[in-house]
Amino acid sequence: MNETNLLIEAFKNTIYKVAGHGKRNIQILKDVLHEVDGQTDSDVYGNGKIIEEFQAKMAAYLGKETAVFFPSGTMAQQIALRIWCDKKGLKKVAYHPLCHLEIHEEGGLKELHHIEPVLLAGKDRLIELDDVLNMNEEIACLLLELPQREIGGQLPDYETLEEISSYCREKGIKLHLDGARLPEILPYYQKSAAEVCSLFDSVYISFYKGIGGIAGAILAGDKAFTEESKVWKRRHGGDLISLYPYIVSSNYYFDEKLPKMQQYYNNAKELAELFNSCHAISTMPLVPVSNMFHVHYQGPKEQVESVLVELYELTGVGLTSYLREAIDGTCNYEVSVGDQYATLPKEKVKQVFQLLDEKMKRFNII
Amino acid sequence: MNETNLLIEAFKNTIYKVAGHGKRNIQILKDVLHEVDGQTDSDVYGNGKIIEEFQAKMAAYLGKETAVFFPSGTMAQQIALRIWCDKKGLKKVAYHPLCHLEIHEEGGLKELHHIEPVLLAGKDRLIELDDVLNMNEEIACLLLELPQREIGGQLPDYETLEEISSYCREKGIKLHLDGARLPEILPYYQKSAAEVCSLFDSVYISFYKGIGGIAGAILAGDKAFTEESKVWKRRHGGDLISLYPYIVSSNYYFDEKLPKMQQYYNNAKELAELFNSCHAISTMPLVPVSNMFHVHYQGPKEQVESVLVELYELTGVGLTSYLREAIDGTCNYEVSVGDQYATLPKEKVKQVFQLLDEKMKRFNII
Repeated sequence: MNETNLLIEAFKNTIYKVAGHGKRNIQILKDVLHEVDGQTDSDVYGNGKIIEEFQAKMAAYLGKETAVFFPSGTMAQQIALRIWCDKKGLKKVAYHPLCHLEIHEEGGLKELHHIEPVLLAGKDRLIELDDVLNMNEEIACLLLELPQREIGGQLPDYETLEEISSYCREKGIKLHLDGARLPEILPYYQKSAAEVCSLFDSVYISFYKGIGGIAGAILAGDKAFTEESKVWKRRHGGDLISLYPYIVSSNYYFDEKLPKMQQYYNNAKELAELFNSCHAISTMPLVPVSNMFHVHYQGPKEQVESVLVELYELTGVGLTSYLREAIDGTCNYEVSVGDQYATLPKEKVKQVFQLLDEKMKRFNII
Repeated sequence: MNETNLLIEAFKNTIYKVAGHGKRNIQILKDVLHEVDGQTDSDVYGNGKIIEEFQAKMAAYLGKETAVFFPSGTMAQQIALRIWCDKKGLKKVAYHPLCHLEIHEEGGLKELHHIEPVLLAGKDRLIELDDVLNMNEEIACLLLELPQREIGGQLPDYETLEEISSYCREKGIKLHLDGARLPEILPYYQKSAAEVCSLFDSVYISFYKGIGGIAGAILAGDKAFTEESKVWKRRHGGDLISLYPYIVSSNYYFDEKLPKMQQYYNNAKELAELFNSCHAISTMPLVPVSNMFHVHYQGPKEQVESVLVELYELTGVGLTSYLREAIDGTCNYEVSVGDQYATLPKEKVKQVFQLLDEKMKRFNII
């Protein structure tokens, strides 16, 4: 077995996991259905009490007129941008170079919708007001992702958001929020979801990230926008006869996880501090602004892998199942703090980070 | 309340239903999960034992090299046609004027894939060999739907299928099967699924029609085709992190319903004969070739509605919850025979059709 597989194996065998909500197994759905009356009618092609009530609940939470449930954010966001492009008669949008649509969707936006993206800012930093002001090209829509996942979940100042929003309104540019992890950033901004969303014309949120559901997304905006999105949802093949397995689980875990977002955020800050206290380890951002951050190890992947395997075997605590290699030869991974951190005994945490610090001191820093 | 709503209400209040498998409620999913171990791992973006095993099972059933699970047939079929068009470098396909892609998908094939359809045959009949031979335009792919749902689930002779298949292979035209209801036609053709599919280059089947699942579809073909379909599945937003709620239910009801297809077919023929014995009622086709057919009433919708409401109240047996108005002023609806027909006492059946016949004699035939 190579180091990568040894790490996966060692992680699997640990008793405690530092990040996440727990295993993605079928129990997640069984727990939900245990609470649902079997006589509840299915939704039928986007209609029915079960989907309409959840859509209304999410519209209220997001402070938007209406909301539509989608099987995926990929589908919801392509459609949002398509609607705004069609409205303006201009197939051009702007987003971050590490936007989900740019790097995780096999070019769906271009291949299916023939929309051309303008990439704003650099791969290592957030979109700032100047990036928007200095754009040379006319666009129909600007997409902002909060937090910006691929750079560790960073966030702009709230004032920057307000300024970008004002500028876009003035210039007739629609502003779309990739809010896959919107609930996770509210403790930092100290704002309600509706307050943040009021800066945007349309917003998408996900139910399997911080919320811990199975899959599914909500797209919200004004009624004309969401009605058009339903037509595109059918065209994409997303208007399933029944979406209720995702709806009931989204609703269940939304209610369960929402009150815990402050706790996840606090735990993320505590955990990041512990990583930063270790030799040759740092987090990005240094102080998290949500429940997520990236952990950077100043060492080569294979060496860090063997350090982690030893650590897991000695302590029974798993930090990560994978490492990504960076161009400079160091390595890193993503942490999303969820329910599992709170189950970890304090003395275990102390032991893990003492050992990690010692072990990291033993090899040469890149 | 108008007659239409009275019919819905009266239907709901009946004890017995003649058609279908039963209510589409959440119990459908609860029954499945009761049988599944909660520790079973979720699929993750198209990977994992739970999805791979089901795909392999379906590939074997359909006699194809590989199969891919999709959230919907709408998505699967657009993608199949897109792949065949790209392969030939020609964005033109042929299908029936009442094809699902033409009438139920908000023009997704045109709007997302810019594929132009050539409509073969008339709205009131099947595609025959001559329609294919006499096509003036070059196409990349021909789609055949078996059975042709919108005209009562009619089927061509098996020899016609073989001839169309030979011709398409000779001419380099890909042949795609809309086999949403494929299991339902096998008792009539007296063929295995794999035998029918061997005439086609690609095939889609559905899990919420005759199979009685919640949603979901399989697209099957050779490996190059299915691998490309996975890329398009991601572009469409159909590559959900977890599709298992649909996979476990599709698998469960596939195993449960497949052995009953002969029974549904026999019952459909018996039931059609009963309708045809009534005054001013006939079925299309006259003798069903699957578990489905349409029932045509030679009378105006409102009058037939009040006949049915009376019938339901007198007998406690529901025939249909809706009627469609035809251009000639008559009305009709679709019947798919499922599990419920077998629960209906024989004397009830006799009573219902005697009464229906008497009532239909009372009003003027259009």
